[in-house]
Amino acid sequence: MSITITAFEKSPDGGKGLARDTRVRWALEEVGQPYEVRLLSFAALKEPAHLAIHPFGQIPTFEQGGLALFETGAIVFHIATHYVGLLPADADARARAVSWIFAALNTVEPPILDLSLSVILEKDKPWSQERLPLVQDRVRVRLMQLVAHLGAAEWLDVDFSAADLMMVSVLLRLRPSGLLDEFPTLAAYVARGEARPAYQRAFAAQLAING
Amino acid sequence: MSITITAFEKSPDGGKGLARDTRVRWALEEVGQPYEVRLLSFAALKEPAHLAIHPFGQIPTFEQGGLALFETGAIVFHIATHYVGLLPADADARARAVSWIFAALNTVEPPILDLSLSVILEKDKPWSQERLPLVQDRVRVRLMQLVAHLGAAEWLDVDFSAADLMMVSVLLRLRPSGLLDEFPTLAAYVARGEARPAYQRAFAAQLAING
Repeated sequence: MSITITAFEKSPDGGKGLARDTRVRWALEEVGQPYEVRLLSFAALKEPAHLAIHPFGQIPTFEQGGLALFETGAIVFHIATHYVGLLPADADARARAVSWIFAALNTVEPPILDLSLSVILEKDKPWSQERLPLVQDRVRVRLMQLVAHLGAAEWLDVDFSAADLMMVSVLLRLRPSGLLDEFPTLAAYVARGEARPAYQRAFAAQLAING
Repeated sequence: MSITITAFEKSPDGGKGLARDTRVRWALEEVGQPYEVRLLSFAALKEPAHLAIHPFGQIPTFEQGGLALFETGAIVFHIATHYVGLLPADADARARAVSWIFAALNTVEPPILDLSLSVILEKDKPWSQERLPLVQDRVRVRLMQLVAHLGAAEWLDVDFSAADLMMVSVLLRLRPSGLLDEFPTLAAYVARGEARPAYQRAFAAQLAING
């Protein structure tokens, strides 16, 4: 059954690959599954047809036959459990990879998202400059903990998995801030992710629309 | 094999049940699995022994035999896939429930967490009062979308599942703010969750330590 995902008609990042459809494209490329893309305007995100699939009016979504999913984490996990290439075979290693998927989205990404909101949405607020160091330090705490875990390892837990796909995607959001460059271990980790042919194909596919 | 989770020796909320071990306790009560609790001081969270299990130095963790997991979402999902009672049997319904688990943690909780941080950690900052309405409005956007999805339904998708456990737990964090009371649909939804005997047992167990 063919797979259809949704993406922005025009991504706010102008093709940097930071919109969340890139994560799903990357997952589908890793497992070698072709997919169609339905492009949506910002207005279309808030229309009943889309809200029926995504109650929070965001992208991406994932449709295959009668199944419609939302939330990048759930979509990537679904792809990883239905096709080979993104999760280890061993049950315990698989459960650990799920821990890392949630860690990327629920522990590492929230302060990074707060930093993005501070820089973009709160840029002109009177508190913007004074509050920024506090928000950056919250991010640094998580990055230091991640460095301590990674050490000299190539990936989070032996082989590349959906957990690395998600963590690298989350860390990529930091590039415009310069914070990533404070942590060479993480800059190298992110570069390893970006060097994967599947990521390259996913990035090129979104750039063809947004570039 | 016996299950051991970790929790705060003394929860910062003084027994309101908002620390994340309550979510795991609730899941274990729903599936009828007994568990042991290892209590940790704030200092112990940052010690190598704990960081080996939880790289971000938080609670809860989950240990069973040789398996050690972290991240509440991953732990609840693990419990829900290994024991009966927290996920529907149908594969598509199960994938939708996973969408909602991620939605609770990655779309609804981040603005709520930001609100908590604003009220607690940034209380004495000069921007605190001026920024608060902006943070509250970000939460309201998500709550309105959730109300639109729930409508007159009892749970997110037919029967109570791990998705409701997570969403109710996330919404409970809003109670001190008064925001929950602006949305009677959600206040009633949260009350239905709290009324479940499994939640009552989980709440009582954490209160016995923190109260």
